[in-house]
Amino acid sequence: MAYKNIDYKKTKELITKIFNAYGFTSEDSDIITDILLAADLHGIESHGIQRLIRYHKAISEGVVNVHAEPEKLIETPISAVFDAHGAMGQVISYAAMKLAIEKAKITGIGMVTVRNSNHYGIAGYYSKMASDEDLIGVCMTNTEAIMVPTFASKAMLGTNPIAVAMPADPTPFLFDAATTVVTRGKVEVYNKKEQPLPMGWTLDEKGLDCDDPGKVLYNIIHRVGGGILPLGGSGELHSGYKGYGFAMLCEIFTAILSCGTTSNHKTDRSDTSHCFWAIDYGIFGDKKEIRSNMSRFLDELRNAPKAEGADRIYIHGEKELESVADKTKNGIPVNEKTFGEIQDIAASLGISSAEYIGAKF
Amino acid sequence: MAYKNIDYKKTKELITKIFNAYGFTSEDSDIITDILLAADLHGIESHGIQRLIRYHKAISEGVVNVHAEPEKLIETPISAVFDAHGAMGQVISYAAMKLAIEKAKITGIGMVTVRNSNHYGIAGYYSKMASDEDLIGVCMTNTEAIMVPTFASKAMLGTNPIAVAMPADPTPFLFDAATTVVTRGKVEVYNKKEQPLPMGWTLDEKGLDCDDPGKVLYNIIHRVGGGILPLGGSGELHSGYKGYGFAMLCEIFTAILSCGTTSNHKTDRSDTSHCFWAIDYGIFGDKKEIRSNMSRFLDELRNAPKAEGADRIYIHGEKELESVADKTKNGIPVNEKTFGEIQDIAASLGISSAEYIGAKF
Repeated sequence: MAYKNIDYKKTKELITKIFNAYGFTSEDSDIITDILLAADLHGIESHGIQRLIRYHKAISEGVVNVHAEPEKLIETPISAVFDAHGAMGQVISYAAMKLAIEKAKITGIGMVTVRNSNHYGIAGYYSKMASDEDLIGVCMTNTEAIMVPTFASKAMLGTNPIAVAMPADPTPFLFDAATTVVTRGKVEVYNKKEQPLPMGWTLDEKGLDCDDPGKVLYNIIHRVGGGILPLGGSGELHSGYKGYGFAMLCEIFTAILSCGTTSNHKTDRSDTSHCFWAIDYGIFGDKKEIRSNMSRFLDELRNAPKAEGADRIYIHGEKELESVADKTKNGIPVNEKTFGEIQDIAASLGISSAEYIGAKF
Repeated sequence: MAYKNIDYKKTKELITKIFNAYGFTSEDSDIITDILLAADLHGIESHGIQRLIRYHKAISEGVVNVHAEPEKLIETPISAVFDAHGAMGQVISYAAMKLAIEKAKITGIGMVTVRNSNHYGIAGYYSKMASDEDLIGVCMTNTEAIMVPTFASKAMLGTNPIAVAMPADPTPFLFDAATTVVTRGKVEVYNKKEQPLPMGWTLDEKGLDCDDPGKVLYNIIHRVGGGILPLGGSGELHSGYKGYGFAMLCEIFTAILSCGTTSNHKTDRSDTSHCFWAIDYGIFGDKKEIRSNMSRFLDELRNAPKAEGADRIYIHGEKELESVADKTKNGIPVNEKTFGEIQDIAASLGISSAEYIGAKF
């Protein structure tokens, strides 16, 4: 599919206007747009502007409640639990991480869980909110079931990403990984290219190894069975039960600790659970010393001997931060389909998109 | 190699006597022995009684200081940091998790890090200490470097296990996993059997995929280069950078947050770092409700549709708890080499092992 770059700043103005037109406050529209476009800037297209159409539908159908008033069910000096009551995922999540950060600054740690929320964008956005404040940030979310546990034939867990951010110089450590071996997006790419999948990525409806992306996607959409494997792949040979275990941690810290809905019971309604932790690492010693140790360690990794044929060892987050620098300057790539969707959505809300992203693809 | 079962209770008496003879107090000898044999009971032979010879050497050579006095460097209501000053890993680790548990009972969370410690046995022992008290337990340790980061050719990270325990009925969720795709022990098994390794487990000294267990072990022992891959394997195809990322989390929460020694700088001296967290999940709601939700979720996983050819879906910890029940009753399997080592060590300390484990293999 053809891609073209659209200006980041102009696009941001347009998308903010769109969310404003749905009825979100100016502040909330800014937050939603910033998080949505952060995905594109970071090079995670699946969670970026191409998802606008899905948010549009969810808002139009009332799955996302623009005027939801999230309710704080529980609060202690180090924790809180929210019922989002169907709010836009980004709005409640931004507030929840803000609260975790506030608590961490007072007590050393803040751990906030949220239930009955919606898709919130990239997990790494929220963990980075904490590292931007010189704290350690942790963020997880469950999702609709797509991961098949070891020895099962049915998806019971979500992609269940775990994101952790730790301050360092010159750039922070930013880890953000689905606990599935790959995301659905990668299976879709193989399907478009009509290429067989690498073994160890997916299972068919019988729970057997499968390299047919079309079949896997059909099975997922029609809930026939099978799905994507945990990190570590099929069976026990490459320790797939470890990826299954990490997905369980995500489920425990989100759905179980918010009395929310576990991935295997999720529908397409507002029943997503998240967690947000901020930790002031000063409770473990001198922050300058710890931060400098961390920075030195990352440098040692960067400078470790390379594998034959490899020219660089990456620290988690480096690729993404370089992508941000590039795309802020050179624009965000959008494909023709997404471009058309933005035009249509803007038009349906009485907004002219041409002055922001041009009239033609 | 031939195995025979030795009685658990009698063996425990003998091993306690041995640690007593080294000069450990009765209380510390009990703790060390309980943790050491817990590995055998759980079916994790690599961390059990076969390691006695290594502890014996470390104690004899003064690497482990029997009379070490660990020092509490920092303490807040929710955290503490210890310098173990070369103490036996099990002794300081038991104390550290006890302190984390005490703090969690008062404030909701306790996070304790330890530096300058030694090998502490199985990580899952300590996380289970918390779940036995109806808390969530987390425990990690770094180890000598054996994991090669994505695109590197040199081991820079340890096996870096992450253990998390969460109470549930009828049995708790007990996750304990090295973040390498496999442990060194598995490579040793393939070497003994003279079988090629599955691709995706190890790299040679050039950082290239390698299926020769003898070569990999030689390279590890002689620090030539290469080593074991992170969970997710080689390069990016099966997302090995995720396993590399999880190993980084372990390094951050142990060595970085104790100002200790990162795996790439570890020697065979006392420079291991650990962390111990206990979380009272009551800070997130009614404990009965949360525990019952967790138990129901685990049941749903157990009862999910099975893959063709599979007869059971395991919850993390189930295999190990069943092994404990079996071996407590039927004895611990030891091989001839280990049996001889126990005899020799006991004799060198003036203890007759015959009355505990028999005179002959």
